[in-house]
Amino acid sequence: MVSAQPAAYVDPFVGTDGMGHTFPGACVPMGSIQLSPDTDIVPHNINGIYQNRTYDYCAGYRHSDSTIVGFSHRHLSGTGHSDLGDILIMPVTGPVRLDGYKSRFSHDTETASPGLYEVTLADYGIRARLTATKRVGVHQYEYPSEEAQHIILDLTHSIYGYDGKVCRATLRVENDTLVTGFRLTDGWARTNYTYFAISFSKPIRDYGYKDRHPSSYGGFWRRFDIGHNFPDMAGRDIVSWFSFDEGEPLTVKVAISAVDAAGAVRNLQAEGAGTFDELAAKAAAAWDKELGRFEVEGTESEKTMFYTSIYHTLIHPSVYMDVDGKYRGVDGNIHEADGFTNYTIFSLWDTYRAEHPFLGLFWPDENSDMIRSMVEHWKQNAVGMLPVWSLMGNENWCMSGYHAVPVLADAIVKGTYKGSVEEALAAMAATSKVRIYEGLGFYMDHGYVPLDESGTAASTTLEYSYDDWTIHAAALKTGNKELAGEYGRRAMNYANVYDTSIGYARPRYADGSFKEQFDIDQTYGEGFIEGNSRNFSFHVPQDVNGLMKLMGGEKQFLKKLENLFAMDLAPEYYADNEDIEKECLVGGYVHGNEPSHHVPYLFAWTSKPWLTQYWVREIINRMYREGIDGLGGNDDCGQMSAWYLFSAMGFYPVCPGTDQYVIGAPYLPYVKITLPGGNTLEIKAKGVSDRNRYVKRVRINGKPLDRRYVTQEDILQGGVWEFEMSARPSGNDRLRKPYSFSDNN
Amino acid sequence: MVSAQPAAYVDPFVGTDGMGHTFPGACVPMGSIQLSPDTDIVPHNINGIYQNRTYDYCAGYRHSDSTIVGFSHRHLSGTGHSDLGDILIMPVTGPVRLDGYKSRFSHDTETASPGLYEVTLADYGIRARLTATKRVGVHQYEYPSEEAQHIILDLTHSIYGYDGKVCRATLRVENDTLVTGFRLTDGWARTNYTYFAISFSKPIRDYGYKDRHPSSYGGFWRRFDIGHNFPDMAGRDIVSWFSFDEGEPLTVKVAISAVDAAGAVRNLQAEGAGTFDELAAKAAAAWDKELGRFEVEGTESEKTMFYTSIYHTLIHPSVYMDVDGKYRGVDGNIHEADGFTNYTIFSLWDTYRAEHPFLGLFWPDENSDMIRSMVEHWKQNAVGMLPVWSLMGNENWCMSGYHAVPVLADAIVKGTYKGSVEEALAAMAATSKVRIYEGLGFYMDHGYVPLDESGTAASTTLEYSYDDWTIHAAALKTGNKELAGEYGRRAMNYANVYDTSIGYARPRYADGSFKEQFDIDQTYGEGFIEGNSRNFSFHVPQDVNGLMKLMGGEKQFLKKLENLFAMDLAPEYYADNEDIEKECLVGGYVHGNEPSHHVPYLFAWTSKPWLTQYWVREIINRMYREGIDGLGGNDDCGQMSAWYLFSAMGFYPVCPGTDQYVIGAPYLPYVKITLPGGNTLEIKAKGVSDRNRYVKRVRINGKPLDRRYVTQEDILQGGVWEFEMSARPSGNDRLRKPYSFSDNN
Repeated sequence: MVSAQPAAYVDPFVGTDGMGHTFPGACVPMGSIQLSPDTDIVPHNINGIYQNRTYDYCAGYRHSDSTIVGFSHRHLSGTGHSDLGDILIMPVTGPVRLDGYKSRFSHDTETASPGLYEVTLADYGIRARLTATKRVGVHQYEYPSEEAQHIILDLTHSIYGYDGKVCRATLRVENDTLVTGFRLTDGWARTNYTYFAISFSKPIRDYGYKDRHPSSYGGFWRRFDIGHNFPDMAGRDIVSWFSFDEGEPLTVKVAISAVDAAGAVRNLQAEGAGTFDELAAKAAAAWDKELGRFEVEGTESEKTMFYTSIYHTLIHPSVYMDVDGKYRGVDGNIHEADGFTNYTIFSLWDTYRAEHPFLGLFWPDENSDMIRSMVEHWKQNAVGMLPVWSLMGNENWCMSGYHAVPVLADAIVKGTYKGSVEEALAAMAATSKVRIYEGLGFYMDHGYVPLDESGTAASTTLEYSYDDWTIHAAALKTGNKELAGEYGRRAMNYANVYDTSIGYARPRYADGSFKEQFDIDQTYGEGFIEGNSRNFSFHVPQDVNGLMKLMGGEKQFLKKLENLFAMDLAPEYYADNEDIEKECLVGGYVHGNEPSHHVPYLFAWTSKPWLTQYWVREIINRMYREGIDGLGGNDDCGQMSAWYLFSAMGFYPVCPGTDQYVIGAPYLPYVKITLPGGNTLEIKAKGVSDRNRYVKRVRINGKPLDRRYVTQEDILQGGVWEFEMSARPSGNDRLRKPYSFSDNN
Repeated sequence: MVSAQPAAYVDPFVGTDGMGHTFPGACVPMGSIQLSPDTDIVPHNINGIYQNRTYDYCAGYRHSDSTIVGFSHRHLSGTGHSDLGDILIMPVTGPVRLDGYKSRFSHDTETASPGLYEVTLADYGIRARLTATKRVGVHQYEYPSEEAQHIILDLTHSIYGYDGKVCRATLRVENDTLVTGFRLTDGWARTNYTYFAISFSKPIRDYGYKDRHPSSYGGFWRRFDIGHNFPDMAGRDIVSWFSFDEGEPLTVKVAISAVDAAGAVRNLQAEGAGTFDELAAKAAAAWDKELGRFEVEGTESEKTMFYTSIYHTLIHPSVYMDVDGKYRGVDGNIHEADGFTNYTIFSLWDTYRAEHPFLGLFWPDENSDMIRSMVEHWKQNAVGMLPVWSLMGNENWCMSGYHAVPVLADAIVKGTYKGSVEEALAAMAATSKVRIYEGLGFYMDHGYVPLDESGTAASTTLEYSYDDWTIHAAALKTGNKELAGEYGRRAMNYANVYDTSIGYARPRYADGSFKEQFDIDQTYGEGFIEGNSRNFSFHVPQDVNGLMKLMGGEKQFLKKLENLFAMDLAPEYYADNEDIEKECLVGGYVHGNEPSHHVPYLFAWTSKPWLTQYWVREIINRMYREGIDGLGGNDDCGQMSAWYLFSAMGFYPVCPGTDQYVIGAPYLPYVKITLPGGNTLEIKAKGVSDRNRYVKRVRINGKPLDRRYVTQEDILQGGVWEFEMSARPSGNDRLRKPYSFSDNN
């Protein structure tokens, strides 16, 4: 029924064009290395000026490009901002050029599967194959026979590079098959240390480098011919070349460390042994092991979408630690992880919604270590906050809120966090009290973020308010009633930015007045972050009934909700907008960006729960497709994919911090999950189809489900869930509705 | 007879003007910290263009300047090239300016003694006091009462700074009295990591910073007011300010580490406890302890010169290691020193001559650890060489030869190296065989460095040849006859650059021909490094008799040697020359630079040994004076001072690698030395004076000395040496002459 090699269903090209911002290269689950081709940024005509549309290149690769610049070792999957592209290697033949060494390629020669990427570089006739371990990128280059084999190692290359991004680089030839080095970059990761160790399968015959930005010092270096066969290279902008004898293919193994080059060498020794094919087989097996926890029935295309989505959820967060447990903390210091694996790449504004709940459910140990990493980040962070966006031992402060808090709360409430819950709670509370953080001082004093202090005051208030509620929930779980009370009060702050006169959230000034000119459909400039009021006003997952009351009762609430999906959004609201393009809209609902991800599930609180079933299937059909442009928005480090996976299985964590998952409808007729403890869960939806998209009845291990949600416990006990599907909607009002804060207070 | 506080005789201002390139600030013996004022570089008219004469500012301070820019934590003592000036702090009052915050000062308000420097900053009315521990710089600032107290912490400041020298800097406010940070610089130390931790004696009231070179990233930082009271600062060119309440003086303690900020904090905790006065007293006591090993009789001025010279020999090499034994190696990796203290600042072209022999004699444990550090440098160095010039975990390749080799050989021969002699010998041999190093491959094959490959081919051949001889000597000491034989042959290579037709060394091309146009008095462009052939030709300390034969016998040799001191060097040979100025000449002999330092002692191999006595006293009289311009050349990390000290005691290590010190004549009537083992050595020269400058007879513990040299053993057994002085020269030909290689082969 199911392939023993589920990795075969994964198509890494999904999302490599259009909005997905994914990369096709090689990695292993949650590995440090994402070894992938970087294509050439072609300047686009933007507003009459030819510019690099760097937004498209967040993952380094655009399927529409025709040239490859080289293969670099770290990439972000699905982000909307760019960095990394570290340690670029390009195999070349003929006379060595340190500029303009890129090559054309044809997609006909290109294949990708989990842990393996291959392409032919047309200009050189070189067949390139890439695979990876957790900390080592592995290249195999088959050159035309009789041709001397060169590689370019370009330490100036960077995704979203600019003059001065590389602060410093060094390169040492340790012996004739080992090179080590370092570069420090000032990018989205503000002070990013990348040490590396590179081994070659045959001896270096000849090598050299050029510093494109030579130092003012350096006179005494003339005692050597430093440009040629000089083993101790350094500079700001170094491009180097290495030559090898013709004949056998060249295998290059590149290990990375943030600690020092010795750490990279240890990583190389620990993980780099074996031939390319052996390592590629290991990488594929690692993916099969993780992907194999799921078995699905469906069309080939549906299986591709399902397994590709799991693949995308398991790229980030990524390990950020050497094999010996050392890592560089957010304080720049070298730490030793005590009993956990340190992770980075926490895109929390995105991933608190479904990615972390997904990992927490099916990879709870890894998710627990991620949380542990966040708590360490808190201890190391000068500002005293849990991560907002953790990138390579740096905080980049991307987006708003403090959404590590719901990730911690969710794991505490669900009992999956294995670290000190007390410490985690302390970190959450401390984070929520950093008065210098975007309007937070005013928010603490007055219950909302004022527009005077933040351009996204309304959405930030909504976000703080939800995050605060999760502290309430976690405190309750631990029996800390005082803390629960304090944050229960803050959880209601969302109401402070509701303008009952228009029935939507609206930013307020410090004097209490609402912003005057206001457009609920406008994404920018209206006090919301990457979303408009029409969508963002529903961002009260903790208190849907409270929100409903504010909006004037269920009828008004439903009207707004139904209209959101049914309406047409005028083109002026999404033209020239990076985050909202036509392709990611369902009516006025924006799936391509995160603030609305829970919104289709809010029908579960109303008398028309079947509308969730209707619209979720609609969203899947429109937003998730096989193919290079198969993602209707930035995958955002797995969040888009995790939304799909939950939704395809028939339930979704609308409010992380509860143990509830709101029922939608399975997209696929059969999913079998091997749960962390070894139990299995089968989810059956016989006959499900676009027509039979409605759920008539759910049986959990034979017993009819009397709620519109399932719990963590329901899932983890495993067994068989049977969804009885129907072509006609049904709304059984006797079913218990999901959690809503003000119902309990 | 002698002060119990010999530090009181030290005048740190000696050499702070003229050629000395010393600094007046605070440090402890061989400490990591040299906390000293940096004065403002005033552009000079050089060749019609106003330029920064950076050569004058190698130590950051020029006595002739009238403004102080601030107080920075690391300085080079006596070098001829510039770097460091790390972590500059300037106390200011009034409105905070991040540019132009310098202050005028008067020397009337300035005092300096070992471990203590004080000055009044006239523009602010601030009394500044500086002291240091090994790893902590301590500032005390007394502000005018009623004035708010500010400091500027300028991470852009550097000695010999240029745009882009600072690659990256970070600054974290850990709490209201602790700041940590980091900067990476691309200077003479090519990739120099400086982490720091700064504690304040009172809470920071307010702070901020500016990045003079903001990054292309950084949009999300707008969630904060990052310029003001934001604790996580970073950038390329950061200038910051901190404000404190008025009232009590402000004490600032700055610890440095090359490992990480946590290492700096540990250094601060381990060494920084105590008030300013307590720490200043400790620093003075540390100096008294080391200086107190010597007791001297003489005028106040002579005592000042003697103790100041010891002071200058004990500034560098400097500890380069955290209190926990961690340090950054030349490979950029973090190492843990196993049973030794790691040192840096090895100016070996200078210091192999007298500085290391001086330390090896009186501070043998420290010198042994310095050698151990050099051996580790060899293991870590990509080029596979012992250090040439080690600077802050970097090799800067300054000057020529491989003069760590004689330092190691000298300690091996004298039995003072406590590490593995076998490993040291392996390091020495490996260093001498790095074919890519300045002409060394050709030298190994053909016996000389060709002018085709090196502009300093003749002197480099002489240097290699001597260095090789020391490998021979060390190998002999360990009984390795094969190695001794191999390097005995290389030791004779000096003869390959002697042109017997002119009787001087002369560079040759690869085809064997000598350079045609040739001027033995010209320092530059003639194949010699910072010396002319007239001086450098005598650089055969290992085989003075062999050289004598080459020169046509003793008569010719003596004629040249006598003439060297008696002649007048035409002004064209020293005008516009950084390394040779009129003030450092004695006839044609150049004392201000190192290649000739042993030359006045070569008379000991001739029938006129008294000429050594004559000229050494002459050199001391002319080149070593109290006062700001009291050094007749760059002190070169103690080499100039060590020459003086040996010479003033009456003996000099002409050929490190032998256990011999050639007898000159004491300059002072009485020196008493407490030797490392606890024995004492008294050197008496009753009645010595400019008139009574000649040695008639020497008695060692009552027994007449029958040689023109003393040995390591003679010195270490201690006792009493009596020099019988006379106004008339005497040359007793029955006295055994010192070592000469070809006499033994």
